[in-house]
Amino acid sequence: MSTSAPTSELRATRVAARRVDALASSIIRDILRLTRDGSVLSLAGGLPSREGFPMAAVADAVADLDPDDLQYAPTEGLPEVRAWVADRLRAAGRDLGPDDVLVTSGSQQALSLLATALVDPGDAVAIEEPGYLGAIQALTPAEPTWRAVPVDTDGLQVDRLLDAPAPRLVYTATEASNPSGCTLPADRREALGRWSDHTGTVVVEDRAYDGLDFARGTVAPSVGTWTDRVLTVGTVSKTLAPGLRVGWVAGPPDLLEPIRRAKQAADLQTGTLAQRIVARLVADPRAFEAHVDEVVARHRTHAAALAAALAAHLGDRVRAPAPSGGMFLWAQAPGVDTRAWLDRAVADGVAFVPGAAFAATPDAATRLADRLRLSFATLGPAELDEAARRLARSLPA
Amino acid sequence: MSTSAPTSELRATRVAARRVDALASSIIRDILRLTRDGSVLSLAGGLPSREGFPMAAVADAVADLDPDDLQYAPTEGLPEVRAWVADRLRAAGRDLGPDDVLVTSGSQQALSLLATALVDPGDAVAIEEPGYLGAIQALTPAEPTWRAVPVDTDGLQVDRLLDAPAPRLVYTATEASNPSGCTLPADRREALGRWSDHTGTVVVEDRAYDGLDFARGTVAPSVGTWTDRVLTVGTVSKTLAPGLRVGWVAGPPDLLEPIRRAKQAADLQTGTLAQRIVARLVADPRAFEAHVDEVVARHRTHAAALAAALAAHLGDRVRAPAPSGGMFLWAQAPGVDTRAWLDRAVADGVAFVPGAAFAATPDAATRLADRLRLSFATLGPAELDEAARRLARSLPA
Repeated sequence: MSTSAPTSELRATRVAARRVDALASSIIRDILRLTRDGSVLSLAGGLPSREGFPMAAVADAVADLDPDDLQYAPTEGLPEVRAWVADRLRAAGRDLGPDDVLVTSGSQQALSLLATALVDPGDAVAIEEPGYLGAIQALTPAEPTWRAVPVDTDGLQVDRLLDAPAPRLVYTATEASNPSGCTLPADRREALGRWSDHTGTVVVEDRAYDGLDFARGTVAPSVGTWTDRVLTVGTVSKTLAPGLRVGWVAGPPDLLEPIRRAKQAADLQTGTLAQRIVARLVADPRAFEAHVDEVVARHRTHAAALAAALAAHLGDRVRAPAPSGGMFLWAQAPGVDTRAWLDRAVADGVAFVPGAAFAATPDAATRLADRLRLSFATLGPAELDEAARRLARSLPA
Repeated sequence: MSTSAPTSELRATRVAARRVDALASSIIRDILRLTRDGSVLSLAGGLPSREGFPMAAVADAVADLDPDDLQYAPTEGLPEVRAWVADRLRAAGRDLGPDDVLVTSGSQQALSLLATALVDPGDAVAIEEPGYLGAIQALTPAEPTWRAVPVDTDGLQVDRLLDAPAPRLVYTATEASNPSGCTLPADRREALGRWSDHTGTVVVEDRAYDGLDFARGTVAPSVGTWTDRVLTVGTVSKTLAPGLRVGWVAGPPDLLEPIRRAKQAADLQTGTLAQRIVARLVADPRAFEAHVDEVVARHRTHAAALAAALAAHLGDRVRAPAPSGGMFLWAQAPGVDTRAWLDRAVADGVAFVPGAAFAATPDAATRLADRLRLSFATLGPAELDEAARRLARSLPA
């Protein structure tokens, strides 16, 4: 074999495939591991409060299991879950049925699969700045060329998309956006939808925090009201429980079919038992909405508690505008490198996510260096106060 | 924008990314959907018998859930599950601990993630002919150059790997291989391990049917006994229940670390509740082994029933050697194109998987055109007899 060396020798110094080169370990996941011993008060993860899980309803849902609940099930997902998702999307103005829904292992997998199925290396992908870290991670192995589109106090600046050639795909978290806390106004949704319809750009509309706006009772229109080039992503992680790993992606058949094949290849299907539990938990819409009412009421209380604690202990050194909903304050610490601050904060027993983690490009990371995301969902008011106290102690003078 | 047309217009006729072009929809998954109404007796899917699920133990495991069972958990998996897997692998001769195990959403995801993390487009990947369809699907989006390595009555012909430059990766199902039903002899495992140690080729050792050999009580040595270039893949889908979606991949840190990052990006983590259930079901090793004893006893009975039914209704038109274990007969229907036969068979109320589905290359598909995989795990003996009757009715004269 003098002319053709073994592949494995040629790449003896290379272990990982190129597509994961740019894939940094998630700082949120790394902090989750770090904080499980309980000594660190974590404002980092997007962990819902333990107190918000519908334990009694889950106990009912698993009280009388059938062997089919543990058997293989279709890749597409259980019909009851797909029908429930389709109902919600129709309420948001989309003309979709159960067959237009693919159940996924959390919304993270929905994002990963649509990247696998639709994005070729080098394709331009636009994302909010700041943009959801999980989306950046999910899309990175598809090797896109990133474009960061700035967010103002209302969310994605849709008109800034016109500044450059239309990308292959735009990602935006439309409801109580993670991390910025904005809910995109209806006129921007319409502008985004009409632009997508004109250019053919696929809009990934992440509704992970759908229904978790502090102003409960209104359903904001889907961008898919104005175009069919929309993939809507959602999850029960924030309304029911994240450990079930049930999410979805919905959209027109030509976009959904390659995603369905990617799902087959990725994990065959989402857990049958977990889907069965979700189907039972959402079967009574009034009970579900009453549960979400409780979750949001807790979020509102905790958000106010954290804001008050920050004001009391940090004064104007950390500025945190009130979010429209969700689980996070998106804050600014003028003049502070929050990545460096994090190391000291963890040593002082508190964690958060530095702003640069929400940047898809190096320039965006520089611009977000003094930002930080603080979750108010996980801890109770007294712990939030202590966390703010520790933040103040660790903040560089 | 005269010199730079929008990306989306340039590819207006192209929806899917290139990496999913070669990804056909899984015929096994398509048949699963087709056969859920009950009118078709399916020998196609690898569905364990409903009667084999440990329903009482699962009921116990979910009787007293804690909110932590529904919360986010580390990407790596629950410590109890990782420790149990490491124990099993040490019993097979591998020098690994819990930190060398990554819990995945079934073994399918283990295969998908290792492909994402380790295989660059064009890398040579060798797989058995016939090779597990799920592995072919999982690896395809990584765009490998496939090489089919023939199987004889003992399994993978390891010496045939020497015929060409060492590939990046070799996939082999070592225990009661799906679909061929062979268990790789110890001397071939050693030869494969030593060759891998010499060449640096990564061996993916799929032990999905570990413990399901009809000769219970022996643990075949891991290929990793002779080299650290081995990733061992496993699952509880066939021993406990597939709807839980709990599997794993284990191996040395330099191979596992990029897979862990790919897992973060793909779905954050495997379901917490499902892992908690598995941890409880395997906590008592004797109860677990007693359960697997029952599963294997049922498989043996069903395998004999299907073999007898084929002999009675099809005579020598279908030849099916006795498997060493697992859930399948790998059969030959000389002179018959089994893909064409399948359409008639489904019309007559019976389904199987045609041999070509287990081919990674077009040449292999041609060579496997008269083969078929028949599952004996799902149906009871009376149904297996009726299925063989329908097979005979639909077989081309």
